[in-house]
Amino acid sequence: MTAALQAKELLIRAVECDQSGRILEAQTLYQDGIAQLMSFVSSEPDEQKRKGFLTRIKEYMDRADAIKARVNGKLMLGEVVTHISIEENDTGYDYVQIFGKYMTNQTVEILLEEPYMTQNYQYQNLIRFLELAVTNCAHFKYFRLVTKKDTNNHEQQKTNMGQIKADLERRHIAFYIKYEDSLHDRKIFLSNGYIIKIGRGLHFYKASNPMYSIGLTNYKYRKCLQTDVDIWRTSSTAN
Amino acid sequence: MTAALQAKELLIRAVECDQSGRILEAQTLYQDGIAQLMSFVSSEPDEQKRKGFLTRIKEYMDRADAIKARVNGKLMLGEVVTHISIEENDTGYDYVQIFGKYMTNQTVEILLEEPYMTQNYQYQNLIRFLELAVTNCAHFKYFRLVTKKDTNNHEQQKTNMGQIKADLERRHIAFYIKYEDSLHDRKIFLSNGYIIKIGRGLHFYKASNPMYSIGLTNYKYRKCLQTDVDIWRTSSTAN
Repeated sequence: MTAALQAKELLIRAVECDQSGRILEAQTLYQDGIAQLMSFVSSEPDEQKRKGFLTRIKEYMDRADAIKARVNGKLMLGEVVTHISIEENDTGYDYVQIFGKYMTNQTVEILLEEPYMTQNYQYQNLIRFLELAVTNCAHFKYFRLVTKKDTNNHEQQKTNMGQIKADLERRHIAFYIKYEDSLHDRKIFLSNGYIIKIGRGLHFYKASNPMYSIGLTNYKYRKCLQTDVDIWRTSSTAN
Repeated sequence: MTAALQAKELLIRAVECDQSGRILEAQTLYQDGIAQLMSFVSSEPDEQKRKGFLTRIKEYMDRADAIKARVNGKLMLGEVVTHISIEENDTGYDYVQIFGKYMTNQTVEILLEEPYMTQNYQYQNLIRFLELAVTNCAHFKYFRLVTKKDTNNHEQQKTNMGQIKADLERRHIAFYIKYEDSLHDRKIFLSNGYIIKIGRGLHFYKASNPMYSIGLTNYKYRKCLQTDVDIWRTSSTAN
């Protein structure tokens, strides 16, 4: 496929996603499509064609900016639905207990901002989160993870993320990962309009101690670290 | 506490368990109480007292034998309630899906015959089994595990089992372990009258591959090895 055709396909999919309210995926596709267009526009010998491409690039950039504003708007606005204070050593807080009921068949896209994704237990938490999403959200189609680069072993991190991406794709879920080294705040955005903010993000469990004890695999029985949970609903849902 | 008092206490608890239908625990307590009585009866100087002890030992042995016959009878008789053939690479078979509905508030005692309990994943399966029992059976009081000795590292096995025992005791569940090197068949006996026979016992899952993929922690999504499941109901329930 030529670069022009690839760009065209990405941007057609971007518009489709945009129109059906899948704004997170549309955002990614616009970015990728625009980058693809840019990569060959300067080497286009025909000046007329070059101008045409630049006009279209400008159009798509405007659409991408509008979507970005919508995503950011959703992340900023809203009302608090519920607040949970988890105390040190509390139990009863598997993900399903905290936010399972907000993950529904209307949750088509999920954005997870989780700075720390480098240790085995952190990958396990990510998988537990995705297992819950796959279980609860029949129409889950797009997952974006924003996290920090593993400065000790970024290759291993890329390998692990690649495996998760391939696994999700087998379930027809697109996985887009963005490394952002300045990330601090934790946030889960569900496309049905809910935002879950947990002070410690996904990683608020103590290790199983002793290892072989109730709570090793069922996190409802795991002791927690102190953290606060706020769940927000944005003014609009789905679109 | 003197040996005589200890024996008396064990045997009083045995009779209580026996009368309330907790036959697995009664069986263990009779055995322990009888062993305790035997340990000091021969050194009793008073011949009259010695005779008295021996008479009581004989009585308790008869009761223990009667219970053993009842337990064995329950394990032998019954009707098949359901049969499941799990094929290689099938998914959808976490323990809860297979036998969760038979673990109820009427399940006070559980006997698990599972020959292999030496590897990390096997201990994890045991914990997952116990977590389900603790979740579903509000009146779970007694757990007996029959397994083979770990010939490579029996000390580690005893340490692990000791941790599980202490953990269950914090939940007021007695844990009794019996090492039986000739054990082959797998069996789960629930005191509400159900027997679950799985060809491969608790260990019929493939490893998560690649490790970080859906199914790492939620076994509903794990690929299985081929095995057959038969679930039996004994003619009587509870008693």
